[in-house]
Amino acid sequence: MNSKRELSKLITKIENFEELDSEILKKIFEKEGRAHRIGFTGPPGVGKSTLTDKIASLFVDENKAIGILAVDPTSPFTGGAILGDRIRMEESSKKGVFIRSLGSRGGIGGLSRRTYLSTLSMEAFGMDYIIIETVGVGQVDLEIKFVADTTIVVLTPESGDYIQAMKAGLMEIGDIYVVNKCDRPGAEEIKREIEFVLSFFPNSDWNKKVLLSNGLKGEGIQELKREIINHKNYLEITKKKEQIVKERRKRFLIDFLRDEVWDQIELLLVENGLIEKFLADIEFGKSLDEIRKDFYKFLKKGLNSL
Amino acid sequence: MNSKRELSKLITKIENFEELDSEILKKIFEKEGRAHRIGFTGPPGVGKSTLTDKIASLFVDENKAIGILAVDPTSPFTGGAILGDRIRMEESSKKGVFIRSLGSRGGIGGLSRRTYLSTLSMEAFGMDYIIIETVGVGQVDLEIKFVADTTIVVLTPESGDYIQAMKAGLMEIGDIYVVNKCDRPGAEEIKREIEFVLSFFPNSDWNKKVLLSNGLKGEGIQELKREIINHKNYLEITKKKEQIVKERRKRFLIDFLRDEVWDQIELLLVENGLIEKFLADIEFGKSLDEIRKDFYKFLKKGLNSL
Repeated sequence: MNSKRELSKLITKIENFEELDSEILKKIFEKEGRAHRIGFTGPPGVGKSTLTDKIASLFVDENKAIGILAVDPTSPFTGGAILGDRIRMEESSKKGVFIRSLGSRGGIGGLSRRTYLSTLSMEAFGMDYIIIETVGVGQVDLEIKFVADTTIVVLTPESGDYIQAMKAGLMEIGDIYVVNKCDRPGAEEIKREIEFVLSFFPNSDWNKKVLLSNGLKGEGIQELKREIINHKNYLEITKKKEQIVKERRKRFLIDFLRDEVWDQIELLLVENGLIEKFLADIEFGKSLDEIRKDFYKFLKKGLNSL
Repeated sequence: MNSKRELSKLITKIENFEELDSEILKKIFEKEGRAHRIGFTGPPGVGKSTLTDKIASLFVDENKAIGILAVDPTSPFTGGAILGDRIRMEESSKKGVFIRSLGSRGGIGGLSRRTYLSTLSMEAFGMDYIIIETVGVGQVDLEIKFVADTTIVVLTPESGDYIQAMKAGLMEIGDIYVVNKCDRPGAEEIKREIEFVLSFFPNSDWNKKVLLSNGLKGEGIQELKREIINHKNYLEITKKKEQIVKERRKRFLIDFLRDEVWDQIELLLVENGLIEKFLADIEFGKSLDEIRKDFYKFLKKGLNSL
């Protein structure tokens, strides 16, 4: 792939669940593992877009090729250039960074798979760093862990409820934590509390740091970039990067096959009026066990026709 | 089912994905449709638990049997009586309301299905109203729509970002909106803004209201209860309730069959080392198309052994 236009078209295809040309797929899988994927997650309004913008801008200054993917499972329609109100990435835009939104056009299903394929496409296009940002709601915030190499959890002093973040599982998935908007009261306290909470989680040999930043004023961005590089080096030196790439591919494959086979089975069920029949069975008191058996009986016959 | 102890045991079985006795299943499906299900959703910290507590308490005063189900997809372990810090339902507890948490013990998968089965169990136990409360993070907040008859979206003047709620899809799923903590500045403005946003969504003949409340002080609770009853009556008079029950059951059945069949297929794949083989295939440049074909070939053989 040589032009941003091509890349953008490819991602639109992915977004729309279109069948990808197998030559293209081969090509994008071949290149996997070279780029570093950075994921920003955290509640809405903590400043993830601003941090993404500033970090991307710093990398551009070092002549790195950067792609930004804004994943919004709540948006039924994003389109290539329409980035919605939440994305204001001025610095990056000015510097020619490739920015794309990925919405849930055609259903939320498989969004993390489409996210993965989109980052693969960016990688094949030659991006050195791919930054993935989530909207801050929903399961996708946790699933970013499976797409990113370095996951950054962003909180603010006010969001205060780092307890809620913890409950949401964010305390398990971060490699780096950032207290953004650190000019607001309580930043240092929240930092210490996060550190305290982190100390309860079984840790690997990577030391999870909690950084302070003020995205709008550009404070703490250099430190954050340095920590991202530290984590990148850590993953490469310990060979964990290879492991991550392998696991990610495995997960993708399993998801792909599951959706694939279920789509076919559901079609068979609908075509044969089986859903209605099973529902009537339940009403007449048939047990789920019996329905399961009927289902398998049907499946054995039905699959042979695929 | 005659005792709360029995009910609690049953829900624990459901939580743990244990196979349910088919007689029990028959019984709980038979009773479906009588109880009214109320779902509270909204961001963390807006006061959902308090509102749940107060509403439940009002219903108890009218001699209704109430069950509360607190769904926490982020908790790997809840257990029957351990309700975690977020649930402080003093009034209801004192009045003997049945309160249960449902965590993601054994994986997030199928949580909405387990939620549905748990409410069915409560219904079979004789509950008139079942209140379902979500933790305020993740997909489950939207899926509550599929379990509840009346969905209540709770916001506060401060959470301010009703825009974010909108982006998260909450503006589509509510039947009633509540601005809680309405003693804080901006409550009236937020109310008007929500009304404004709601006016953009294609509506049915149900008029979505935005109410003000102060859960801790008990203000606005009577009005909320009245609106819940209005909505309940609306669903019954328009026969929409029957439709909801039917749709819910259909969704449950489809989910059940999908997970069912995939569990079996995944087992087959793993037992036969197919995942590793397919991954190696991808590395050697095989296309997803070819892998799909191999997969079906295998499936046709494999399923006959089930």
